[in-house]
Amino acid sequence: MGFNELPTHVWPRGAARGADGEVTIGGVPLPEIAVQYGTPVMVIDEDDFRSRCRDMAAAFGAPENVHYASKAFLTRQIARWVDEEGLALDVASENELRIALAAGFPAKRITVHGNNKSLSFLGLCVSAGVGHVVVDSHQELRELNVVAGRAGAVQDVFIRVKPGVDAHTHEFIATSHEDQKFGLSLASGSAYRAAGDAIAADHLRLTGLHCHVGSQVFDAEGFKLAAERVLGLYKQIYAEQSVALDYLDLGGGYGIAYVEQEEPLDVAAVAADLLRAVREVADDLGIPAPTVVVEPGRAIAGPSTVTVYRVGTVKDVHTSHTTTRRYIAVDGGMSDNIRPSLYDSLYDARVVNRLVDGAEVPTRLVGSHCESGDILVNDASWPEDVAPGDLVALAATGAYCYSMSSNYNAFGRPAVVAVRAGEITPMVRRETVEDLLAREYDLPAI
Amino acid sequence: MGFNELPTHVWPRGAARGADGEVTIGGVPLPEIAVQYGTPVMVIDEDDFRSRCRDMAAAFGAPENVHYASKAFLTRQIARWVDEEGLALDVASENELRIALAAGFPAKRITVHGNNKSLSFLGLCVSAGVGHVVVDSHQELRELNVVAGRAGAVQDVFIRVKPGVDAHTHEFIATSHEDQKFGLSLASGSAYRAAGDAIAADHLRLTGLHCHVGSQVFDAEGFKLAAERVLGLYKQIYAEQSVALDYLDLGGGYGIAYVEQEEPLDVAAVAADLLRAVREVADDLGIPAPTVVVEPGRAIAGPSTVTVYRVGTVKDVHTSHTTTRRYIAVDGGMSDNIRPSLYDSLYDARVVNRLVDGAEVPTRLVGSHCESGDILVNDASWPEDVAPGDLVALAATGAYCYSMSSNYNAFGRPAVVAVRAGEITPMVRRETVEDLLAREYDLPAI
Ligand SMILES: Cc1ncc(COP(=O)(O)O)c(C=O)c1O
Ligand SMILES: Cc1ncc(COP(=O)(O)O)c(C=O)c1O
Repeated sequence: MGFNELPTHVWPRGAARGADGEVTIGGVPLPEIAVQYGTPVMVIDEDDFRSRCRDMAAAFGAPENVHYASKAFLTRQIARWVDEEGLALDVASENELRIALAAGFPAKRITVHGNNKSLSFLGLCVSAGVGHVVVDSHQELRELNVVAGRAGAVQDVFIRVKPGVDAHTHEFIATSHEDQKFGLSLASGSAYRAAGDAIAADHLRLTGLHCHVGSQVFDAEGFKLAAERVLGLYKQIYAEQSVALDYLDLGGGYGIAYVEQEEPLDVAAVAADLLRAVREVADDLGIPAPTVVVEPGRAIAGPSTVTVYRVGTVKDVHTSHTTTRRYIAVDGGMSDNIRPSLYDSLYDARVVNRLVDGAEVPTRLVGSHCESGDILVNDASWPEDVAPGDLVALAATGAYCYSMSSNYNAFGRPAVVAVRAGEITPMVRRETVEDLLAREYDLPAI
Repeated sequence: MGFNELPTHVWPRGAARGADGEVTIGGVPLPEIAVQYGTPVMVIDEDDFRSRCRDMAAAFGAPENVHYASKAFLTRQIARWVDEEGLALDVASENELRIALAAGFPAKRITVHGNNKSLSFLGLCVSAGVGHVVVDSHQELRELNVVAGRAGAVQDVFIRVKPGVDAHTHEFIATSHEDQKFGLSLASGSAYRAAGDAIAADHLRLTGLHCHVGSQVFDAEGFKLAAERVLGLYKQIYAEQSVALDYLDLGGGYGIAYVEQEEPLDVAAVAADLLRAVREVADDLGIPAPTVVVEPGRAIAGPSTVTVYRVGTVKDVHTSHTTTRRYIAVDGGMSDNIRPSLYDSLYDARVVNRLVDGAEVPTRLVGSHCESGDILVNDASWPEDVAPGDLVALAATGAYCYSMSSNYNAFGRPAVVAVRAGEITPMVRRETVEDLLAREYDLPAI
């Protein structure tokens, strides 16, 4: 595939390169956005985001079976889109919950995660009336029962179970093995004990079990194995406690393609496979099949967004007597996208303001931070005519980029805009140095 | 060393545990700060910070020979302290420069870094009258000459040289090898060409050469080798261009102890060794010895600060049939300290509100983020009586923690306070969910 072609399985569905060489998304040329909003700027293809919500909803039987994992990318506008598409929402902190509520997201369709929920957070869950709290420890179970009791409420809960399945992904993002902070162990009997305690608790109602096997998973096997194990626990609860559970929450982790060579997980096929497996296992075990719910973050938000940067310094570096590498620096970097440094993540980057067609040279795309590890694309081959002033976009930056962004080197966070049907909707304005100073106390006069 | 003792070479100089078991810094009990400002809260020992400025100044002959690397930790108050101690300041971005100027830091004592300085950044350098711009590429050299020319100014510059020395540190933080984005190669002749161009440029004045060999360096060898090589270039410039340079800027990287087992670099000894070596090499080469300047960030800011967290969930996890690990979760994590995830960094953490003395159990200190890699201390042995509500502090969090902090999971950044002689000076207020939403555009009415 040539450098001027956009891999459609990586770029937003509404991305296209026009005859003039400019890349448009949702009918809006990226160079126009760069001029109007400056760079770096994050551009969300609203239709892409919504279409992935719908694909997930179709695959898992109903929109409310899909809980968008808001940690991937959350603004009030994004929560609004998720609401309009009828999906449920997964939040993992008190502030994520507050932002969802500020967007008017119905509390009943919110599921609450967290390994260390404070009493104030649990109190807000109960007073707001969230749909489910996913209980992560025995301590939390006791505390939530007390908090709900004080409010005179009964809170629906899931138990987060460690099924002992590790879906072969990057060590840092895999969360299903035993030796980690989340959940209660199936193997040790801890999860069963918690389920019993939840059933016995006056102010809790156990309605489901939850597990999460990892991130960037590309087939159904890990999910199926985890589902099978958790259904075993379900069976034990059903048999010994005579309680039927409504939900089996299988978490997130649906993989996407970051670069041309990768294939995204086939959501429809994996969902069909998974739902069939759950029905069969439930039948075999003689238990009523629970509704399967899932929590995709990356697979909904990831491909929707590109980050547009402007090229600054271009430098050729001798890597040996006979070889060189071109370093192309852009006006952002590890502050707006920590994933290459943190997870060795790969990205697809293209020039988006024109066609480029020089001979290809070994190229590294780097940011502007004062750290040599500030690399966006480590090892690429780019036409040699890319030049200062060109616009470069990284695709698939919708998940875990803005949400993990920092102010390293006092960089302000990028502007965020949505595009749809030729229109730009600004979502978040660029962060300024005044914003950075706003929380500082005044200095004493000299 | 017992769990209740504070390793003095890791903790701030003003830290002490009182008879009541509470840890005080600068005469202020940390529990008092936690109550008054909430948790997590970052507490800077002002005297510690200032004393390390003075130690560096003494070691390198004069305060202005020490350029504090503001990327490590910068607020206007910190810039003010650095100014009051007479040190110079190193900034690496337009916003770092703006913050320094907002604090009233004298521009003449500011040195400006960056691999991708924009025209607007270069323009600000010239109009503000910064002391030195460290030129990082041929492109920047041409652009700065034009920018200075337009302003009718002559800008003093250093050339950033890649001496090809890698001071054996973590791959991500080592910046002296050839295949990286910073600087101009000595070996290829690129640095010499740039020096010649700077000398020839009408609106630039070459006053020094710069190199930076890495971070967390613990002896003089890497610095000495780099200095020797750069002095070779200096000699060539002196001999062939008849220009004497005032400065040799050897960058930062002075190592500190993060944990008990580590020894910090002996600043006085390394400086003496380095200064002697520079004089000797200069004598041997028959060139006037330039003034050595250095750019420590971590060695000044790092040990000054602790981050105080409150313990929430405590959970025992079976790691095998016969072994368990205790997971202690605190109310912050990878949002306020990304270094363990990013660099596998180690930290010393202690309970600071009381004495603890139970039998020790294998313990992992984790944060509250929705990610299993959200770990602060991976592998420790802690008394088993640490309990929810206790306060835990991580030492040596002054460098690259607040400055790299994010809003992951919509966490607000911690409050920052300084302590000195029994007084608390608030520096940065805690970030709220309202702050997070302040940059969002209003939603359309439904
Ligand atoms: C419990 C839980 N659910 C959902 C997700 C979302 O994962 P992804 O964005 O990979 O779909 C995560 C991610 O860490 C998670 O921990
Ligand atoms: C050019 C330069 N100077 C100084 C520093 C400060 O280094 P440290 O904080 O390790 O002293 C850095 C760190 O990256 C740097 O790149």
